[in-house]
Order: sequence, then structure tokens, then C-alpha cells
Amino acid sequence: MMRNSLLLASSSLAALEPRFSTYDVQRLWEWPSLEDYAAGPGQTIRAIVISSSVVLPNDFIDRLPQLKLIASAAVGYDGVDAEYAKSRGIVVCNARGANSGDTADLAVALLMNAIRGISQGERRLREGRWTAQNWGIPTRSMRHLRAGIVGLGEIGSTVAERLQAFGTYVSWWGPRPKPAQPLPRANSLLELARASDALILTLRADTSNRHLIDASIIEALGPTGVLVNVARGSIVDQEAVFAALKSGRLGGAALDVFDPEPLPPTLISDVPNLIATPHIGGYTRESLEAAVSILLENLRLFFADQPVTTQV
Amino acid sequence: MMRNSLLLASSSLAALEPRFSTYDVQRLWEWPSLEDYAAGPGQTIRAIVISSSVVLPNDFIDRLPQLKLIASAAVGYDGVDAEYAKSRGIVVCNARGANSGDTADLAVALLMNAIRGISQGERRLREGRWTAQNWGIPTRSMRHLRAGIVGLGEIGSTVAERLQAFGTYVSWWGPRPKPAQPLPRANSLLELARASDALILTLRADTSNRHLIDASIIEALGPTGVLVNVARGSIVDQEAVFAALKSGRLGGAALDVFDPEPLPPTLISDVPNLIATPHIGGYTRESLEAAVSILLENLRLFFADQPVTTQV
Repeated sequence: MMRNSLLLASSSLAALEPRFSTYDVQRLWEWPSLEDYAAGPGQTIRAIVISSSVVLPNDFIDRLPQLKLIASAAVGYDGVDAEYAKSRGIVVCNARGANSGDTADLAVALLMNAIRGISQGERRLREGRWTAQNWGIPTRSMRHLRAGIVGLGEIGSTVAERLQAFGTYVSWWGPRPKPAQPLPRANSLLELARASDALILTLRADTSNRHLIDASIIEALGPTGVLVNVARGSIVDQEAVFAALKSGRLGGAALDVFDPEPLPPTLISDVPNLIATPHIGGYTRESLEAAVSILLENLRLFFADQPVTTQV
Repeated sequence: MMRNSLLLASSSLAALEPRFSTYDVQRLWEWPSLEDYAAGPGQTIRAIVISSSVVLPNDFIDRLPQLKLIASAAVGYDGVDAEYAKSRGIVVCNARGANSGDTADLAVALLMNAIRGISQGERRLREGRWTAQNWGIPTRSMRHLRAGIVGLGEIGSTVAERLQAFGTYVSWWGPRPKPAQPLPRANSLLELARASDALILTLRADTSNRHLIDASIIEALGPTGVLVNVARGSIVDQEAVFAALKSGRLGGAALDVFDPEPLPPTLISDVPNLIATPHIGGYTRESLEAAVSILLENLRLFFADQPVTTQV
């Protein structure tokens, strides 16, 4: 039986090759240029596997006449112009849902780190500033803290569920009302920021919400407020956040995502009250395995002429 | 009306003085020696307020003929020989329960920090080791993690409740079975350590459990295991933990309590995979306020010749 061909778009996917043993695997990174690949096996390739950061230019896609599927091994597909692909009749799918639990967990962990002063306390201890005479300043409790969730999708509602176990008050805002949702929805993002001790960003990034968190939202969150972001760096006016932390107009921030990524550390070396992690929200073995399972199922369905489960 | 007298045993309690406005407050730290105080107002003092680290020697207690109450403004009363005081007919009470929710929260936050590599990730980012080519190694998920709780009192059962919201498997061990408790109890501490990815210490320290966590328990937890301690440093053979972290025989530790405290930071400067916070488990404004409320109520009851609510 003839094996179906699969193009892996990035060497970051090489570790998955054993999982594609039923396919003829082609490796884009072994070709001198995209053009060379397109002129060769690209003439008959039907499916490409990408990871979240792989860039597939539209004019490369244009040169692959048989291409019908772009399947991300991750949740993100930031390097693909999905609208353009769709207009060309190409299905784009991702591993939606695979890592939402882990990403929600990280949001809760980052919030607790900021609220309970864990990184701060660790620095105090290691720098010899923990003394019998100086036990530091007591922090806030998670109990009765007012958390505002921005974007109540799968990640946001999981964060809400977790936080309620801590006695935290949860409200939310998102562009669309959710009548079935019992949690209180603020009238606007600005009102949510004003009424919250912490704002947690869990919404999907798109062109409509670039720099949604701007200077006015930061000001509403204020000198005792905390910003947590596990969504995408583009949602936040990062320079405005760093400036507000430096001037004390924002109390603290715990960010897992940045613009750009990887973040050059010099950009934050003089920013106080900032916890910064290297985009590890969904980066667990369990989430990666779940994502691969979704990917393999989508490939199986595609080559059996059936619809994929997670078209974007 | 004659006001009742109250002895504050440490200047760390001075901040609470406005809350004692209905009492005649005496300040032990203003006296040149315990003997001088005992020979003066100590002859008639009936109630002493302590904080968790204040040391009250038995021979000082012996010199206070009217003393009937030692009330801790905290949960701890480590500097008082409670058995001896009881044998002298003196009631000892504390602020039991005031900070158990916050201490449980810190245990969960420290566990997540270790399991999801937050401190580690932050170091990687800040040291410029986050690159497009190197996204680090994926971690474990909280979901399906096996957590073993040592001591299922108020703090331990709160930790269990919180962790179950994350899909973590929880089992426990404690010296006494709890037939009403649905969570599975291991046959021994050693079995719990063997069966757990993380061991979380939430038991009350006493003379029977000093160095309960010794080299054999650490070995059973093993090179991928994580130890979390929010109870007391005395429960752990600290040197054995640091040695096991250095040699890789223990995967990680997240400790909020030490022996001694404050911990000299030189003791951990070369210890890898260790998150160390300066005993902040119950140190929130909300917990401190709850503790003061319990203390004030106990004082009111005592001077009204009624039993205190939280005798130890």
C-alpha cells in the first residue's frame, strides 16, 4: 500500500517523527530553500505539519498545488495566514483544548506567586534580608481577592473554577455575553479593571484585540493591582506595562507571554514587581502528548477524506 | 472601673497596642530584666500575650504568682513549655485556624512553582537562556500528579480540597486514621513517599515528629520527587534534604519553613532545585486580623471568667 506523504515544516517537529511512522515524512529544513522544495516534492504534497511559531509565507503556499491541510502540532498557528489558506480551500487545524488545563493552572500559579509574594520572598531570603527583626510586610490573601478574567473561553472558565476553590471572587469580561454563564460579567473591560485586584488575560489573540490592555486599563487596575497574562503578548501594550511598573502606577505583573518571544531579558532587567516566565503555560509533557494525539487523529481523518476535529 | 492588666512579651506585638485600648498594657521589653519585671508588676499580672517566637522561660513563669493565661497572637507558641504551664494551672491559647487557609494556599502555590518550573523558568529567561532554538524541557502537569499529604488536619485537608480542583490525585498519611475521611490513607509514611510525586508537609510539629522526614523518606521520594514544607522546619532533616538535592537523589524542594529561622542564606547558596520562602505561609493581612480577633475574644472571655475558645 502506498504511504501518504507528510511535510514537517520545522526541525522543532523532528522529535515527533517516530509518531509519523505510517507516513512518508519530508523535512522542509533539509531543503536549501522553500522554492526548491516547492519545485520538487511540493508539487504533490497534500498535508503540512507546523508548530506554533513556524512561518509559512502565502507565496510558498501558492506554490503547492495539491495542498489541502495545514495541521498545527500546537494550539497556536501564529505563522500561518489562516484566512488566506481558507480562501485557497486549505483546511487549517490545531490542537485546540490540548493544553487549556495546564495554561489555566499556570495562570493561577502566577497569580498566587504575585499575590503571596513568593518570588519576592525568595529574593529577600537569598539576599539575607530575612531577619528576626524584619519578617517583611504581610501580603494579601487569595481569599476574598477580586479576580477579573478577560476572555471566558476554555482557559478562562478553568481559571475561574480553580480560583473559586481558593475563595477568590471571580468576575469577567469578554466581547460577547454568555447568558448560560453564572459568573458576573462586567459592563466593560475598564469597569472590570477598576473593580479587580488582579486582571487575568486568557482570551484568544486576534487582530481586534492587539494592545487591548493599554495605559487606560493599566491605570484602572492601579498601584495595588496585578496583571497576569497567559494568552499572547500582543494583547498587552508591553512598554506601557513596564513603564507603569517602574513608576509604581501598576502594582505588579506576572507574564508568561511577550512580544516578541523569546523576550530579550535586557527589556525587563530594571522593571520591578515583575514575574516573567518563558511561555511555559501549556508546556507540559501531558499537554504535548494530548496535542500529538489530536494531530494524529486529524491526519488520519484527513487522509480518510473525513473532516478534521479541530478546524480553525 | 478598674482596667485589667495585660503583659505584652515582645516588641513585635507593639503594633497591636491600639487593639488593647481597654487594657492597661505593660511592655516586657521596657524592663532591664525578666527578674525586675517579675519583682514589680509581675506580682499581680494575670495574662501575658506572646507571639510565636517569644521565649518564656519556665523560671520566669514561676515568678508570676497570679499568672493564669498565656495567649499567643499567632498559631505558634514554640517558645513556651505548654505542658509545664498547664501543670502550673496556666491556660495556654493560640490563634488556631486563623491562617490555615492561607498556609494551605502557599503549599499549593509552592507545589505548582516546583512542578511547573516557575522559578526555574524565570531564571532561564532572565539569564538569556530562552531562545527560539531552546524552549527548555516540558514539565509535568498538575493533572494526574500524585500528591501525598503528611498530616491531614485543617491545613492538610484544605490543601487536598484545593489540589483536587486541579485534577491532582491526593492521598495522605498521618499517625492517626480518620475513618470519616474519604481520601485514601497510606499504610505508612514510607509507602506514601514511594507512591507520591510530591510530598506536602502540613502536620503540627511536636517532639514526636522531629526529623520525621529523614534520609529514608527522601530516598523513597526519589530523584523526580518534590518535597513541600509549610509546617515547621524541625519536621525535616534539613541537612539531608540539602545533600539529596545536591546529589540529585531528590528532584526538588519548596520550603517555607526552616531550622533555624531566619535561615542563613549561605546554607542554600549551592543547593539546586530549591525554592525557599521566608516563612510566609500564614503571613497575610487577613490571617493576622483573624488571629487578633481570636486573641481579643480569648482575652475578653478570660477576664469574664469564661473558658477561652482555643486552649492548646
